[in-house]
Amino acid sequence: MVVVMGPEAATAEVDAVVRRVEEAGGEAFVSRGVSRTIVGLVGDVEQMRALNLRGMAGVVDVVRVSAPYKLVSREHHERMTTVRVGGVPIGPDTFTLIAGPCAVEDPEQTLEAAEMAKAAGATLLRGGAYKPRTSPYAFQGLGETGLKILADVREATGLPVVTEVVDAHDVELVASYADMLQVGTRNMANFALLQAVGSVGKPVMLKRGMSATIEEWLSAAEYVAQRGNLDIVLCERGIRTFEKATRNTLDISAVAVAHGLSHLPVVVDPSHSGGRRDLVLPLSRAAIAVGADGIIVDVHPHPEQALCDGPQALVDGDLRALAAAVRQLPPLLGRGPAVA
Amino acid sequence: MVVVMGPEAATAEVDAVVRRVEEAGGEAFVSRGVSRTIVGLVGDVEQMRALNLRGMAGVVDVVRVSAPYKLVSREHHERMTTVRVGGVPIGPDTFTLIAGPCAVEDPEQTLEAAEMAKAAGATLLRGGAYKPRTSPYAFQGLGETGLKILADVREATGLPVVTEVVDAHDVELVASYADMLQVGTRNMANFALLQAVGSVGKPVMLKRGMSATIEEWLSAAEYVAQRGNLDIVLCERGIRTFEKATRNTLDISAVAVAHGLSHLPVVVDPSHSGGRRDLVLPLSRAAIAVGADGIIVDVHPHPEQALCDGPQALVDGDLRALAAAVRQLPPLLGRGPAVA
Amino acid sequence: MVVVMGPEAATAEVDAVVRRVEEAGGEAFVSRGVSRTIVGLVGDVEQMRALNLRGMAGVVDVVRVSAPYKLVSREHHERMTTVRVGGVPIGPDTFTLIAGPCAVEDPEQTLEAAEMAKAAGATLLRGGAYKPRTSPYAFQGLGETGLKILADVREATGLPVVTEVVDAHDVELVASYADMLQVGTRNMANFALLQAVGSVGKPVMLKRGMSATIEEWLSAAEYVAQRGNLDIVLCERGIRTFEKATRNTLDISAVAVAHGLSHLPVVVDPSHSGGRRDLVLPLSRAAIAVGADGIIVDVHPHPEQALCDGPQALVDGDLRALAAAVRQLPPLLGRGPAVA
Amino acid sequence: MVVVMGPEAATAEVDAVVRRVEEAGGEAFVSRGVSRTIVGLVGDVEQMRALNLRGMAGVVDVVRVSAPYKLVSREHHERMTTVRVGGVPIGPDTFTLIAGPCAVEDPEQTLEAAEMAKAAGATLLRGGAYKPRTSPYAFQGLGETGLKILADVREATGLPVVTEVVDAHDVELVASYADMLQVGTRNMANFALLQAVGSVGKPVMLKRGMSATIEEWLSAAEYVAQRGNLDIVLCERGIRTFEKATRNTLDISAVAVAHGLSHLPVVVDPSHSGGRRDLVLPLSRAAIAVGADGIIVDVHPHPEQALCDGPQALVDGDLRALAAAVRQLPPLLGRGPAVA
Repeated sequence: MVVVMGPEAATAEVDAVVRRVEEAGGEAFVSRGVSRTIVGLVGDVEQMRALNLRGMAGVVDVVRVSAPYKLVSREHHERMTTVRVGGVPIGPDTFTLIAGPCAVEDPEQTLEAAEMAKAAGATLLRGGAYKPRTSPYAFQGLGETGLKILADVREATGLPVVTEVVDAHDVELVASYADMLQVGTRNMANFALLQAVGSVGKPVMLKRGMSATIEEWLSAAEYVAQRGNLDIVLCERGIRTFEKATRNTLDISAVAVAHGLSHLPVVVDPSHSGGRRDLVLPLSRAAIAVGADGIIVDVHPHPEQALCDGPQALVDGDLRALAAAVRQLPPLLGRGPAVA
Repeated sequence: MVVVMGPEAATAEVDAVVRRVEEAGGEAFVSRGVSRTIVGLVGDVEQMRALNLRGMAGVVDVVRVSAPYKLVSREHHERMTTVRVGGVPIGPDTFTLIAGPCAVEDPEQTLEAAEMAKAAGATLLRGGAYKPRTSPYAFQGLGETGLKILADVREATGLPVVTEVVDAHDVELVASYADMLQVGTRNMANFALLQAVGSVGKPVMLKRGMSATIEEWLSAAEYVAQRGNLDIVLCERGIRTFEKATRNTLDISAVAVAHGLSHLPVVVDPSHSGGRRDLVLPLSRAAIAVGADGIIVDVHPHPEQALCDGPQALVDGDLRALAAAVRQLPPLLGRGPAVA
Repeated sequence: MVVVMGPEAATAEVDAVVRRVEEAGGEAFVSRGVSRTIVGLVGDVEQMRALNLRGMAGVVDVVRVSAPYKLVSREHHERMTTVRVGGVPIGPDTFTLIAGPCAVEDPEQTLEAAEMAKAAGATLLRGGAYKPRTSPYAFQGLGETGLKILADVREATGLPVVTEVVDAHDVELVASYADMLQVGTRNMANFALLQAVGSVGKPVMLKRGMSATIEEWLSAAEYVAQRGNLDIVLCERGIRTFEKATRNTLDISAVAVAHGLSHLPVVVDPSHSGGRRDLVLPLSRAAIAVGADGIIVDVHPHPEQALCDGPQALVDGDLRALAAAVRQLPPLLGRGPAVA
Repeated sequence: MVVVMGPEAATAEVDAVVRRVEEAGGEAFVSRGVSRTIVGLVGDVEQMRALNLRGMAGVVDVVRVSAPYKLVSREHHERMTTVRVGGVPIGPDTFTLIAGPCAVEDPEQTLEAAEMAKAAGATLLRGGAYKPRTSPYAFQGLGETGLKILADVREATGLPVVTEVVDAHDVELVASYADMLQVGTRNMANFALLQAVGSVGKPVMLKRGMSATIEEWLSAAEYVAQRGNLDIVLCERGIRTFEKATRNTLDISAVAVAHGLSHLPVVVDPSHSGGRRDLVLPLSRAAIAVGADGIIVDVHPHPEQALCDGPQALVDGDLRALAAAVRQLPPLLGRGPAVA
């Protein structure tokens, strides 16, 4: 069940609802959005119903939901959400280019990549300080050193920072540096991590698991939302199929399907989907055209020296072509530039 | 091995090459294109080499190819092919809208659907007279009666006809009515059918098998090409994956990958990929943006009464939105309308 | 709808049913089994019902079926079917080893492989004269020459022959040599071929399509059954997944699922599933243990010289180990040897 | 690189190797096995080579490895590993039945299920106190209360306990109750969790990710091994494919493939693979026959009331049939009962 509080509900009124639920042996998760507050309940439905929450002060509605996700569903939340990352919007009115190096390697490479990204029209910087790698013998990222580099580069360029966190232990630390926390494809069903990023008060980018259905992806977002954080951006990054010409198969339909089921913004990662530099531009165009709210793209000043995923990083000419597409196509679909 | 004949090579010169190969125990497949003729050889490579074909009259080059496809490869055929269907081009300079009913049901429904299609900007009519259905108890199409209806509707509307053939026995019959023969996803590896449509002298639309890799798809096209027919259009129509929110998963990347590997045009079927009316428009936009040479779309005057795939057929409002996208987006990518 | 005729129904009685249905504009497919005859109807259900077929002589029951398959379903056919191939049973009481070369290359290789197979306990000989290959430049089989070799080897060894047919045109020819016709994975949804093999009066081995669901596989079997042939053996040969350590992923569960849904025998192809010689023995053991009615295995006297799929063909030591497993395990599951 | 220490190497000798590597800026992971100790190195290969580790006391060999996994590979560890869980072996000489409830619900249900398991021949008890569920609104397990119930039931029945841990924070707590820690399919690539369970000194059961390749699965095991723990049991539990008749597709070949690549034991979970009670027995038989070292099976005294996965839990008749198969089949493959 979900308790919908009115836009003018006082904190004390919300607290009273939570208290009544907990005293009855249930759990209550408060999600404060811009326009209203939602309280998700877990516990015996009959018992919850007997609490007569609908009669309490500040409560507008009590809804029973059977889908595995509620707070992120469009069912009771028709207006699409705009998430702001360091002031930069990701939502229905804009198209956001997020770009940067796959992995933070050193200050020079990161700054250079950020300046390339900014020149191409990016308004958010991506970069990994913690890299989850299939092999424990592959480069695992610089950790906190990398986070500091990202903060310095933000200082220098003005670009807010999106970076991945792979361990619930590190969430507070990463959140102290980053403007948006990314949960990667391998961790989409790491529920402890989802709950931790949901609790820390920073926007979250949730990548789709490489074999997750759209329903499972939205259910993972619900784990974040339950902790009171609705500032979630979904990221389609390709699914695992039999086709081997591409690293993953970009499920372009998932953007439209997720937009139909959820009020959350959806961005596309054309770099990790294809795993090939020559596919980044056509897939980015397709993402814009299908209605994505943004894209997140790997750039690197010297891809041949990259410690991670060099073959998919954009350089000069490709990046200029991408910049042109990002300027020209979104306005045709009613979207403006995403600036803070 | 492939023997490339010069543009001015005489038929007798081509015949001489074939004869020499066959006398040596090999097989030779002649493919006459607009600009040149190609002869694909099968047989012992060493023996073929000893024939000294390069010295024969009319021969420009003899190439040894190791890929499973040769004639359809871009490797020795850099310029992209434009296929003409009843005069209507499908190729790099245009964007072609192919539309019509999934199945031909009766003259009225077919004419009405064709007029809807034409009003939306379609310049080719699709429609199935032979329907390969999973269950033998489902509607299997009207057969020759359906072909006659299509021919009548072509007469009435001026739209050339694309229609499926499912059995090598029927190729001559279908070719006597149709302007383009479609090989469906279930028959992509029906090599007897591929060879039959390759021999009959009409353009071919080859749908990708639902679990075929891009390499296998191009190899299937090679079976058609080997019989002397390079007027082949590839059609991406979604692959089979674990995701069930859509009927199939549109592999949008495959358009770009196939364009990189082959000189053949590639179109997208957004109707069968998603299996949902609400996805046709966004997927069509994505197809245009990724660089497809056209789309093939189901329309039906009364989808709720359709005998086949009603839930994905477009009607009024949706079709107008599609028409607008097909007018506006392709010119941005340098493509003009595809008219005869 | 399905009309079930009594075991003692006369041919004239069956014909009368068919005539009445056809006169009403419907279609009737007669399937004569050992114990009874079934007539499957296609047409308007209400109209069929009005014919009062239940009252006709020889009719035991008229059943309305909603599943995409009827004749092959266990729903009205609880007893499991035993198919006899040149006298050799494939069914619930026995375990049948089918073995031979992937492709017939010449008389010596075929005879040698057949003798290896026989020595290992095989009672049916497999061997391909028509090979559907992804690339048109790969070896496509010897055609009728190969069929003659198979017939000669049958003469020499006494082993009935199972061989693939890939084109509806060739069905009569292949049936004139073979004891069982195989429809391969690429042709599982080639409905014209299914109907042709269903009409020719020889047992059929139907391989599962590489991305076919179990329901689609049974529906394909229904196409064969509709033409009056219930002597169908299903063959699980691996499905296409993301895993690349094996050529396909053997869906061992499919054997048990198919046995639950259909009365037809199910065999397993451990050679094409794994594509690796070292997996044939463990996968054969698993097939026996899961309840398969037989296995079909590639053997070759000189795998390193094989024209097709050499890496999966068994030779001496492996084949002896397989022979031991086939002798020892099936009796524990209540199955005896499958001899004519 | 991997440093192999001799069986008699002193702790001080191992420490010296680690110190030298760390002083050179590299990382060293010590894995102490029964017969020898292995030190895995991460860092610049050239620099490591220059350290001349081969000359140090106690060092037997220094091996450069290119595969993404080393310590779990058979390449330098030909003898198959036997893992002991509370004294009960899982390895090449035995067949181990692990059984119990999917989720611990209360003391009575758990004890009853454990007694059912024991009567059927199980020598290890499974049961979940922490349940990772797709929906945050589904039952998530009893947590520490559940662990205490498991410990009490172990006391009562003598069965060592296998239970899942889903969060690195909980590893110490779970390890204080359990005899073996299970890492579930959703967490196979949760590298922080893998490292935590690798450090705590208890055997680990590592389920395969639902879309993980076998290579990725072994690489995940390597994360555990790197922390000094080679007591790892791999568990094949079905992969995600297009087929929907079963919950997952049991990749039976993976057992044989993993045995070829790694010295670790491999067990099969026939309950979660199929998700259907009627498939547990045939899939268990197949698992035994293919060469698995054990199976892990859901049992529940009242499946219709189960809070989790009731449709796949075994009850009386089915469980007796399973017990019979586990008694009869493994001895034919040279395996004895797995008792402490």
